[in-house]
Amino acid sequence: MSPGAPAGARTRPTFGVDIGGTKVLGVALDADGSLLAEARVATPHVATGAGPAGRVVGSEVAHAVAEVVGRLHAMLPPSAGGTPAPVGVGVPGMLDHEGVLRYAPNLLSASGADMSGLLEGLLPATPVVIENDANCAVVAEHAFGAARGFDDVVMATLGTGIGGGILLGGSLVGGGHGFAGEIGHMVVDPAGPPCPCGSRGCWERYASGGGLGRLALEAALAGHLVEVVELAGGDPEAVRGEHVTRAALEGDPGARAVLEELGWWVALGLSNLAAVVDPELFVLGGGLAEAGDLLVLPTRRAYATLVEGGDRRPPVGIVVAELGERAGAVGAALRARRALA
Amino acid sequence: MSPGAPAGARTRPTFGVDIGGTKVLGVALDADGSLLAEARVATPHVATGAGPAGRVVGSEVAHAVAEVVGRLHAMLPPSAGGTPAPVGVGVPGMLDHEGVLRYAPNLLSASGADMSGLLEGLLPATPVVIENDANCAVVAEHAFGAARGFDDVVMATLGTGIGGGILLGGSLVGGGHGFAGEIGHMVVDPAGPPCPCGSRGCWERYASGGGLGRLALEAALAGHLVEVVELAGGDPEAVRGEHVTRAALEGDPGARAVLEELGWWVALGLSNLAAVVDPELFVLGGGLAEAGDLLVLPTRRAYATLVEGGDRRPPVGIVVAELGERAGAVGAALRARRALA
Repeated sequence: MSPGAPAGARTRPTFGVDIGGTKVLGVALDADGSLLAEARVATPHVATGAGPAGRVVGSEVAHAVAEVVGRLHAMLPPSAGGTPAPVGVGVPGMLDHEGVLRYAPNLLSASGADMSGLLEGLLPATPVVIENDANCAVVAEHAFGAARGFDDVVMATLGTGIGGGILLGGSLVGGGHGFAGEIGHMVVDPAGPPCPCGSRGCWERYASGGGLGRLALEAALAGHLVEVVELAGGDPEAVRGEHVTRAALEGDPGARAVLEELGWWVALGLSNLAAVVDPELFVLGGGLAEAGDLLVLPTRRAYATLVEGGDRRPPVGIVVAELGERAGAVGAALRARRALA
Repeated sequence: MSPGAPAGARTRPTFGVDIGGTKVLGVALDADGSLLAEARVATPHVATGAGPAGRVVGSEVAHAVAEVVGRLHAMLPPSAGGTPAPVGVGVPGMLDHEGVLRYAPNLLSASGADMSGLLEGLLPATPVVIENDANCAVVAEHAFGAARGFDDVVMATLGTGIGGGILLGGSLVGGGHGFAGEIGHMVVDPAGPPCPCGSRGCWERYASGGGLGRLALEAALAGHLVEVVELAGGDPEAVRGEHVTRAALEGDPGARAVLEELGWWVALGLSNLAAVVDPELFVLGGGLAEAGDLLVLPTRRAYATLVEGGDRRPPVGIVVAELGERAGAVGAALRARRALA
């Protein structure tokens, strides 16, 4: 390329696509990180009868990613030719350095899929970078969100399960095989409930959406959640996290007690992470973080009592993510841009 | 200094001193890392009646370090003048970036001591570098021991408590405040036995010398350790880790069962660490690691069943440290040399 490259090449957009449990969300960013376009499709589920959510197969997921990329292209002005815009893809689970999804407890039948190979086949000539979804989210929060200015950060995405992304010295921690940050599968009680990963008492059995559901069901069956059960239509078994949050916002003491207990479990995992990697900041994302102070304040209180050394260590922030549901897609785009720069 | 520095400056020894629970051990290394001299004194304990081991005060510990440094100097040929040899010091507990020991559950009354200031006062004109003791140990094992050739390593020193040192990409992980690697204080059972750190069910309550003692006492009181109790002089309360190891070496099935259970607890913590930082290799040091295969083989078996993704992830080695009791002192010397190079 000549020194005077056409402006179009320098300002070419980058695409980021985040594969979630319910949707595949894509964004197109310009060189400043501004949002140019957004597209989404439902995550394809292949019903097998094995569970209410059905199962998902790697190739169908890859097709959904390609579909989102196609929609983003259609929403932007035609490019001046040359290679297509780079695409970053955020994938839940243990992705190795070759782009193979080695294991994904929350996307089980895609485990073993060669995501890199599948996407190369569907997006010919497109530079594709694949990364764990929570790793993408922490990169995005560091660049544009709650972690700006912090270089030692742990992000925990509290959703169906718990994902994690760790920055140390400003760099993403991949570990020896790319599997670092699988923080939801720290065992915090070996006698606890079974986890899809095969262990018992993983942190994500307590501090995730499912964990909140279990705590709420126990409280409802004990008769402590009258208002919450009403919100759920009168059936304790139908109580979900959003019913608890809504009742807590209205001041219901039973619902607040459940969130207090949830905060204790969140803090337990964070204090374990402080013991191992000692971040300056924790960022909480995922659906549960939408409860805001209702979750964060109990978490901070419990963390102060749990972390080793307590008040002898400098205070560490525990804050809510700022980029919401787009964090993974934005971070995937940033990873692609940096990897291909 | 002129370009042609005197040979004495290039081959000047470096000292490393490791502060342990029972001894302060120092080494002098030459530029190749060969051992030139070694000295030790007992760790000073100030009895307060608060516990059988008494308590230790930072300034007395600093005096012991200075005493060891003096003995090392006396064992070497007189230097040709100039600044004294650099000294690295390994300290158990949470040491901040300013050299203050913020918190040390196993050296409690030294908590809060300004180790850097104390040592500067006692070793005038000497360049001193202070580092967490397990961090020193992993640096030494990486340079000369079991972790040669591996850049993503977690070392766990299984002694009175559990210390940890983490290398990622070949670099020591310090975290935001220098406290990374406090892996013994991951909570693995919130209803477990109380820990001196204030929490319950820390990993070091299970997978340390104290943890082995508790497992052995339970087995002895249940009548499963007849031979071990004999080795302990007939009193189940007097059973210690070394009695278990000796009986296991002689094939005693009760003693082997206790080490199998200990290995399960060691593996539980290692699998949590694999979830967070995904190392290529685990190195086990400290007194318990002297049991060798009697501990390592059960640990490997349990790890394979506990780690997320099991056989879908590349195999990770779990090996015994090679440098024995000198690892901390050797690593402290290496840290000093590198920091001052």
